Amino acid sequence: MNIAVLGTGVVGNAIGTKLAQLGHKVTMGSRTANNEKAAAWVKTAGANASQGTFADAASFGEIIFNCTSGAGTLDALKAAGAQNLKGKTLLDISNPLDFSKGMPPTLFVCNTDSLGEQIQRAFPDAKVVKTLNTTNCNIMVNPSLLSGEHDMFLCGNDATAKAQALDILKNWFGWKTVIDLGDITGARAMEMMVLSWVRLWGTLQTANFNYKIVRQ
Amino acid sequence: MNIAVLGTGVVGNAIGTKLAQLGHKVTMGSRTANNEKAAAWVKTAGANASQGTFADAASFGEIIFNCTSGAGTLDALKAAGAQNLKGKTLLDISNPLDFSKGMPPTLFVCNTDSLGEQIQRAFPDAKVVKTLNTTNCNIMVNPSLLSGEHDMFLCGNDATAKAQALDILKNWFGWKTVIDLGDITGARAMEMMVLSWVRLWGTLQTANFNYKIVRQ
Repeated sequence: MNIAVLGTGVVGNAIGTKLAQLGHKVTMGSRTANNEKAAAWVKTAGANASQGTFADAASFGEIIFNCTSGAGTLDALKAAGAQNLKGKTLLDISNPLDFSKGMPPTLFVCNTDSLGEQIQRAFPDAKVVKTLNTTNCNIMVNPSLLSGEHDMFLCGNDATAKAQALDILKNWFGWKTVIDLGDITGARAMEMMVLSWVRLWGTLQTANFNYKIVRQ
Repeated sequence: MNIAVLGTGVVGNAIGTKLAQLGHKVTMGSRTANNEKAAAWVKTAGANASQGTFADAASFGEIIFNCTSGAGTLDALKAAGAQNLKGKTLLDISNPLDFSKGMPPTLFVCNTDSLGEQIQRAFPDAKVVKTLNTTNCNIMVNPSLLSGEHDMFLCGNDATAKAQALDILKNWFGWKTVIDLGDITGARAMEMMVLSWVRLWGTLQTANFNYKIVRQ
């Protein structure tokens, strides 16, 4: 499958590398066609990897992974172009982290709205599925890094796109349990979990942890 | 030990009943000395249980459990009286839930502040420890209701009060793992987790679940 990975950071790298390893053709998109980080990734990720602008990548991809930083997400998706997102499953991994006041970060949208919802409103023809934002990028594509069971979440308005996301999570990335939090307003919960993730990161002194929901 | 339980709802009932069963003297505080819900609780909780105003309870208690609803918490604590909270461990179980816009609730404070911090600022001589707010009241006092390991959190500014809270959680209530999230600003994370709790409640169709942090 042809896949767009928007963003050249650690999340984009991890997702892009995994997808290329699985045999998919991956274009990493960024603001410029010759971004240095994307070029470095292409060199390491092999024959399935290429780079381009956000629009190049989104046009190429049958599925879009949004791995941009939250503060730049809406601009990146505008640059990708609504016509290139139309009708496609857009897996949104971004978090609305605001580092402008120092560490620890706060969220620039939360509680009564979310970045996932902002994306869906700005691009109503894209099928936004929020997922993977609640854990570290190493675990996103390799859940077995942690021993024992732990959970991934997803939410979105389009049942078909959620089914596709579930298939990717389970059968491509190896997630055993994925909890469907309903429509895209579930992104409020998923993004607000990230503040506890950041706090736990400071406490546990490792990024290699994840949430499990223990039920009766 | 003499303990104050502020609040007559399901949380106050569960905490008060457990403490009385453990042999502690418990006064349930509410706005009025003859509150009907508190009276009903006293009848069922046995000889260790009594009721009074918020001030009666806080004056009586060597430890204070704040089990009031978040929207009423600061007023309840004002009625309890700063002098009755001074120097005492104040276990804050409240959540800043705003039901005014219907269900699901939002939070009336979050992200850059928290109800736990508001309480600590309003009552600087109380030793506020935020804990137990991230799970259902049945699990608060009976963690073994869920099979398998799962986690409780706490945070606060006073090390002695946190040690006392930890002792209560582990040795009175039966919590096996308690994660210390640092100073009282950790309440932001703990209170924001409640929106994911509410969302999960809707999805899982049960309140009997809890978070576990799975580590490498």
